[in-house]
Amino acid sequence: MLQSKLFGKTVKDTPSDLKAASHILLYRGGFIRQISAGRYAFLPLGYKVWQKIMNVIDEEMVKVGSQRVITPVLQPIEVWKVTNRDQAFGDEMHVLKDHHGSTFALGATAEGVMTELVKMFNLSYKNLPGYIHQFATKFRDEKRPKEGLIRVREFVMKDAYSFDKSQKESKISYKKFFDSYLKIAKRFGLEVIPVVAESGAIGGEYNHEFIVKTKGAGEGGAFICSNCDYAAHFEKATSGFKAYAQDKKMKKTGKHIDDTVVTCNLLAEKMGIPLHVTTKTILFRTNNDFVAAMVRGDYDINEKKLKRFLDTDDLHLANEEEIKNLTGSDVGFMGPIGLPENVRVVADLTCKDRVNFEVGGNETGVHLYNVNFKRDFPTPSFADIRMVKENDPCTVCGRGKLKMFKGIEWGHCFCLDTFYSEPHSAVFTDKKGKQEPLWMGSYGIGLGRTMATIVEIHHDEKGIIWPAEVAPFDVHLVELEGAENAKSVYENLQKNDYDVLWDDREIGAGEKLTDTDLIGIPVRLVVSGRLKGKVEWKERASEKTEILSMDEVIKKLNIRGNLG
Amino acid sequence: MLQSKLFGKTVKDTPSDLKAASHILLYRGGFIRQISAGRYAFLPLGYKVWQKIMNVIDEEMVKVGSQRVITPVLQPIEVWKVTNRDQAFGDEMHVLKDHHGSTFALGATAEGVMTELVKMFNLSYKNLPGYIHQFATKFRDEKRPKEGLIRVREFVMKDAYSFDKSQKESKISYKKFFDSYLKIAKRFGLEVIPVVAESGAIGGEYNHEFIVKTKGAGEGGAFICSNCDYAAHFEKATSGFKAYAQDKKMKKTGKHIDDTVVTCNLLAEKMGIPLHVTTKTILFRTNNDFVAAMVRGDYDINEKKLKRFLDTDDLHLANEEEIKNLTGSDVGFMGPIGLPENVRVVADLTCKDRVNFEVGGNETGVHLYNVNFKRDFPTPSFADIRMVKENDPCTVCGRGKLKMFKGIEWGHCFCLDTFYSEPHSAVFTDKKGKQEPLWMGSYGIGLGRTMATIVEIHHDEKGIIWPAEVAPFDVHLVELEGAENAKSVYENLQKNDYDVLWDDREIGAGEKLTDTDLIGIPVRLVVSGRLKGKVEWKERASEKTEILSMDEVIKKLNIRGNLG
Repeated sequence: MLQSKLFGKTVKDTPSDLKAASHILLYRGGFIRQISAGRYAFLPLGYKVWQKIMNVIDEEMVKVGSQRVITPVLQPIEVWKVTNRDQAFGDEMHVLKDHHGSTFALGATAEGVMTELVKMFNLSYKNLPGYIHQFATKFRDEKRPKEGLIRVREFVMKDAYSFDKSQKESKISYKKFFDSYLKIAKRFGLEVIPVVAESGAIGGEYNHEFIVKTKGAGEGGAFICSNCDYAAHFEKATSGFKAYAQDKKMKKTGKHIDDTVVTCNLLAEKMGIPLHVTTKTILFRTNNDFVAAMVRGDYDINEKKLKRFLDTDDLHLANEEEIKNLTGSDVGFMGPIGLPENVRVVADLTCKDRVNFEVGGNETGVHLYNVNFKRDFPTPSFADIRMVKENDPCTVCGRGKLKMFKGIEWGHCFCLDTFYSEPHSAVFTDKKGKQEPLWMGSYGIGLGRTMATIVEIHHDEKGIIWPAEVAPFDVHLVELEGAENAKSVYENLQKNDYDVLWDDREIGAGEKLTDTDLIGIPVRLVVSGRLKGKVEWKERASEKTEILSMDEVIKKLNIRGNLG
Repeated sequence: MLQSKLFGKTVKDTPSDLKAASHILLYRGGFIRQISAGRYAFLPLGYKVWQKIMNVIDEEMVKVGSQRVITPVLQPIEVWKVTNRDQAFGDEMHVLKDHHGSTFALGATAEGVMTELVKMFNLSYKNLPGYIHQFATKFRDEKRPKEGLIRVREFVMKDAYSFDKSQKESKISYKKFFDSYLKIAKRFGLEVIPVVAESGAIGGEYNHEFIVKTKGAGEGGAFICSNCDYAAHFEKATSGFKAYAQDKKMKKTGKHIDDTVVTCNLLAEKMGIPLHVTTKTILFRTNNDFVAAMVRGDYDINEKKLKRFLDTDDLHLANEEEIKNLTGSDVGFMGPIGLPENVRVVADLTCKDRVNFEVGGNETGVHLYNVNFKRDFPTPSFADIRMVKENDPCTVCGRGKLKMFKGIEWGHCFCLDTFYSEPHSAVFTDKKGKQEPLWMGSYGIGLGRTMATIVEIHHDEKGIIWPAEVAPFDVHLVELEGAENAKSVYENLQKNDYDVLWDDREIGAGEKLTDTDLIGIPVRLVVSGRLKGKVEWKERASEKTEILSMDEVIKKLNIRGNLG
């Protein structure tokens, strides 16, 4: 294609609010434009990459035996209500009423609809396992869309679903998709680390996130063990913790008065006690009731773990007013003693064996010390409800330390078991003619986020370096002054089935070469008068240039093609 | 692919509410399932056809020089307000508020967003003409979705947009897309009749609908001249009309009292006057005001024409209460005499030269006869605001008669001129450095409706007969009892790049052959013990069977492929 005709131009300047490398380069290279916050248009260059990403994923889905389908964007809200997913997604999903009295969710995910679709066919055990997938627009009303295509409000996702006749076979299916994700990532030139993760609003038994380590972009993060292969999303990770020697005897409780202190660190310093003796008590609203969650002062509460422990999706930090109403005190002085009976108290395991610890006094300015379970307040439930910290001991191998890494959450596999099929009554007929619920899994990859992730990993200071498999074109032909062979080179390349972007624009050589680096097509071919009919070959990923005949160019391209 | 593994099964029974042949066959063949009224899932067979239809359209778009893009589903409502398209679409579009205070339209069309997108690049005359297209989900909240994929509430449409530097060049672009639509239709085996049509809520100067004649399915219809090549959508068509001899002198007005008469036919009979002497007067609400539209009793009002004459999108039939309030009479006795001053009266050209005609008396039960313009009420504006009738004279050639035909509105081309670019300030820089509005066109084809249209045209009583270009598979391999060569035939076909559906199911021969006819793959190959290693060849569109060797099969397929 002629670059002079390409819709979407490269630009030199970057708007100041663009931070992520992928956002800047995809904008400057003319791949994407924002239409509204978190919603992007893909220009022709961007579309071509997007389509190639789709093709790779589709190919690998077909290899695991998945069949492609399409389902509508607007999903009847009734489908969501079956599993209370409308509440689980809450403000993150869009809901609309049509003009005929029906209410729809804009597909934020499609487990419910796919379950209903499969249910229509009264499957027998002979039809199982069965896998289906689609590429469908997903809508998530993210609070803060950011980093271009990494966190958006609207995106096309490949979502696949597996249906099996037993938990055991469902796990085999899960493994197939899991392995397929590793292969797909490899084709995109991405090193992914699968980590155990929280299932969040999707629900289900267990799941893996596939995280790509980055130098900063992305909001994902996980802990990996320095010794064994334990790897878990930071919201899901569990760890041991350092236990400290405790007093043998309970001491008399005392009051410490200081209304300037609201963090545990400062409090420990002022009170002259170790940080681990302090306690964070946090109040949450849940199902029209309150829960107070306690954790040792050197840790933080993990809301996802608390939700799971309480078996609810409805959990929200209480606000200042609620705290004041409930305890009579300002924020920062909350504690477990003397709370109304309807407030359930849950304490993290770090609190369990402590003697003579500190808690907030439920009175502005008051902290209590030498507090003890049972003697001073009813012993609460204990559970792992804390965030793991860097260097916490690994409980799997018992030897390593957990290390945090940051990255982009690129893909996600969910083992759903019968989380959807039971409430949806989506059953199959087993060998004995009995109706049993289907065992399910779901598997997602976002196309736009994949594009951004590839750019985050494959770029340098000059621009993008596309892996051949997803490059918008195979070859960037740069026509410089005096070239008489541009057209014949172009046609020769096309004849050999290479997709070529021919820079025929009437601009300077410098600008053209800068643009080829920015756009990042794997092979650059320069033709110009001074090359006397020869062609200068340069790969985007290398600094080396070579002067070749056209035959040599085709030969070299064929070798590259065969390698890819 | 193995048919035993295919997701989506054929079924024998048709739900009783399915009427259109395409709806019945796509349902029974396992191509589609309804998820909610007017919203369909495409099963794997349906998806494959859908994708092939997309590929054909995309190829032809690329041939006219269009570049593919993607734009978001949720479009900022502000984009719609620039041209008051939100009002023009009204209840036909979905609008939602997000959780951050923004309002969005679900893309019912994309002229506005595409105009904004193109505007971002400050195009110069050198960049023009420029064409872009996308395949995007469209949402239209149709009152009555019907006939399966023919009239739906959600569908993927190929929408293309042309941008030019002058009206003249814009017409050249329009012609390119117009011709491309004829080519696309041909590849689908569809005979289309392009007719001049109303632009409706899309707006713009003139446009063509491409109608496929059917035996009943579809809500489209058009008039074609029996003599010349005039062809126009029934809502857009203009015609002459028979004029009748009129009295030379005005007679004295009289009252006819009969409150049982509310149709012109009955009235003419009861009053003993010809139908053409009666008048239909219809009251409309428009922009917080009222308009009374008059037409000769043997014609009907055409709301689209009236909208155009009044230059408004806001026109609605007045309800009983409004008529009662305004005239004091019940429905059926409305007339132009004595209406409040704020009611504008518009009369069709058929009314113009009449003397001594009948009108409603604005009093229940009262009709007035021997009524005359000027003498009895102010002469109204005259305009063509009527529906054409079968056999009306053609005004283009002056000789033919207009004949109605029914069909499916398959595609639509809109000449938009500067309808969008002026209010959006979407300009380009011309040769002299001056900023001028872009000249635009837009061009749509729905994928699902295309699929249904193909089935409406290509089927028989046994099932679908897919044109090769869009068939879900190239070959349907039917394995009957005792066949030992099924696998080798299957692999041989695959090796030769043919996409094969292998019916390996453990069911009877009759059921298998019935299913091949229903599904409609172009070539059926039967293998069975009695054929002793040979293969029975039958094309879906023919009754002839042949017994061939495998080499002959491949040869015959290659010839077919080359022909297609």
